[in-house]
Amino acid sequence: MINIGIVGYGNIGKAARKVIGKTPDMILRGIITRRPEQVKEEILGGPSEEKMALINLDRYVLDLNQKRKWNRLGVDVAILCGGSKEDTPVQGPELAARFNTVDSFDTHADIPGYFQRMDSVAKEAGNVSIVSAGWDPGIFSLERILGNAFLTGGESYTFWGEGVSQGHSDAARKVKGVVDARQYTIPIEEAIQRVRAGETPEFSKRQMHKRLVFIVAEEGADLERVKKEIVEMPKYYDEYDTEVIFISEEEMKRKHSAFPHGGFVLTSGLTGDGNKQILEYKCQLESNPEFTASVLVACARAAYRMNKEGQSGAFTILDFPLGYLSPHSGEILRSRFM
Amino acid sequence: MINIGIVGYGNIGKAARKVIGKTPDMILRGIITRRPEQVKEEILGGPSEEKMALINLDRYVLDLNQKRKWNRLGVDVAILCGGSKEDTPVQGPELAARFNTVDSFDTHADIPGYFQRMDSVAKEAGNVSIVSAGWDPGIFSLERILGNAFLTGGESYTFWGEGVSQGHSDAARKVKGVVDARQYTIPIEEAIQRVRAGETPEFSKRQMHKRLVFIVAEEGADLERVKKEIVEMPKYYDEYDTEVIFISEEEMKRKHSAFPHGGFVLTSGLTGDGNKQILEYKCQLESNPEFTASVLVACARAAYRMNKEGQSGAFTILDFPLGYLSPHSGEILRSRFM
Repeated sequence: MINIGIVGYGNIGKAARKVIGKTPDMILRGIITRRPEQVKEEILGGPSEEKMALINLDRYVLDLNQKRKWNRLGVDVAILCGGSKEDTPVQGPELAARFNTVDSFDTHADIPGYFQRMDSVAKEAGNVSIVSAGWDPGIFSLERILGNAFLTGGESYTFWGEGVSQGHSDAARKVKGVVDARQYTIPIEEAIQRVRAGETPEFSKRQMHKRLVFIVAEEGADLERVKKEIVEMPKYYDEYDTEVIFISEEEMKRKHSAFPHGGFVLTSGLTGDGNKQILEYKCQLESNPEFTASVLVACARAAYRMNKEGQSGAFTILDFPLGYLSPHSGEILRSRFM
Repeated sequence: MINIGIVGYGNIGKAARKVIGKTPDMILRGIITRRPEQVKEEILGGPSEEKMALINLDRYVLDLNQKRKWNRLGVDVAILCGGSKEDTPVQGPELAARFNTVDSFDTHADIPGYFQRMDSVAKEAGNVSIVSAGWDPGIFSLERILGNAFLTGGESYTFWGEGVSQGHSDAARKVKGVVDARQYTIPIEEAIQRVRAGETPEFSKRQMHKRLVFIVAEEGADLERVKKEIVEMPKYYDEYDTEVIFISEEEMKRKHSAFPHGGFVLTSGLTGDGNKQILEYKCQLESNPEFTASVLVACARAAYRMNKEGQSGAFTILDFPLGYLSPHSGEILRSRFM
């Protein structure tokens, strides 16, 4: 059995707890959180679980700041489930000094620096840290690199959606007069069709995706100004065609509480004397956080095994044999899955 | 530069030569074949290539049986391009004792045994052998295992086609009265749609694929008997709905000379409280041998690197870090592809 700790109990942390509950070779030893009292309440109020009944909640839910108690949990791998902006860059190195870790750090531009920091801490401590593992970055990165390695001179395109982008929802929520916001990223069908047909166009951002934002506005807010501020917001919205739709708080809750997402990695290239070869990886997720957590949990298995074999340092999904993700032995994988 | 040798100069060997010609970090050092004189003729008659002009053909094309000359080629990695039935099981261990090797051995049931044999020879010789690397087995195996690792309790389905199956074409060609045969494997759309919609049915073989066979018959052959023998052929055809169409030799040549293929790996599973998650990997290939060769060439890069780092033994695509397949460094992969 692999002993798991969850660090951060938001959407992904909660999802990770559910995934571990269904994973026969793992046991959840505890949750490290900034708000232990609240999390204890949530767990007691939630569906009863056999495992939970056996565990003293005070031992199981620890305060993020009481580091001296962390070792109590007896954790083999800590799954970092905090945010990539503020939590993981700080918590990552701190945790990697004590445990094997897995995270889904997803600020693409900062991955090289984060990898270096994690690598030196983890090596020093003799731990394994798998970084930036989710579906993008993560599986999609893998598929981009496979496409590039197999089809020399080919082109890869990544489309996201239709699905909720947390970052864009948060950005819209900061506009004055906005109570709540939910942003859906929508890939543009015509662009997908062109790439699927084997074309290799150069697209602008606007040609690949559009954005749809549902807004609950404050009473009396100037809706035209709110809309204008969202649509023209640099980096997040101004380079896309954005539609803003105002809805009631009740409708937001009823229709937009799920976190579906998905996307495609399409690679198109020519081999030989002009033979068209097209590779496509697609995921269609009713729950983005639960799928991300599923990838993290499989990576925790890999981190545990690699560390048992004496490896240490930081790894992306490109840096270790992917058979380690599977609960099955090499023999079974070769006989049943190859 | 990585020095490559091609062993076997059929469809895949020829395709590998084309792929290597477009791969900047590799140079083709030579071809090992059973029919050196014929291959020399083919190369001289083919499109002129700068590299070829510099090479003495007698040094470049060697007889499979003159083993003492093989070392002349100065090969880092030998790509085995022979057939899985008779060539690779014999040539694999023989070559692995002398070179790093890559092959696409695809008799699924025999992979475990072949892996073991290659592992012991390659370890003994201090070489790396990547086995069963193509798109299936190979990338499709990887996607089946990722699907299984990420979606506990989920189901994976592999559909092939629409495309030419060499094995089924060969089997039909052996029926008395058949001059030539081309078999297309066709996935059944309704089955694909059910899996894409998130259902996890148990399909019979007949429910997933049908077979379409084009036959050039001998003059005066009993067409009804030919058709019956094909449709009822055990293992190859009897478990499928098979349609047989008789065509002229001219039509066969004009319409069925290409080797398109493709397929899908679909994995569907539930996470949390019943959220449906669907993963799909799809390839759509105008030339099956050229794509298989492209995968083999990328694997040759991985074999070379692993051996330089001191590794040895047999590896499937699940057993080494996939970043090794890429011509780019880890730094570039992390900054541009993650």
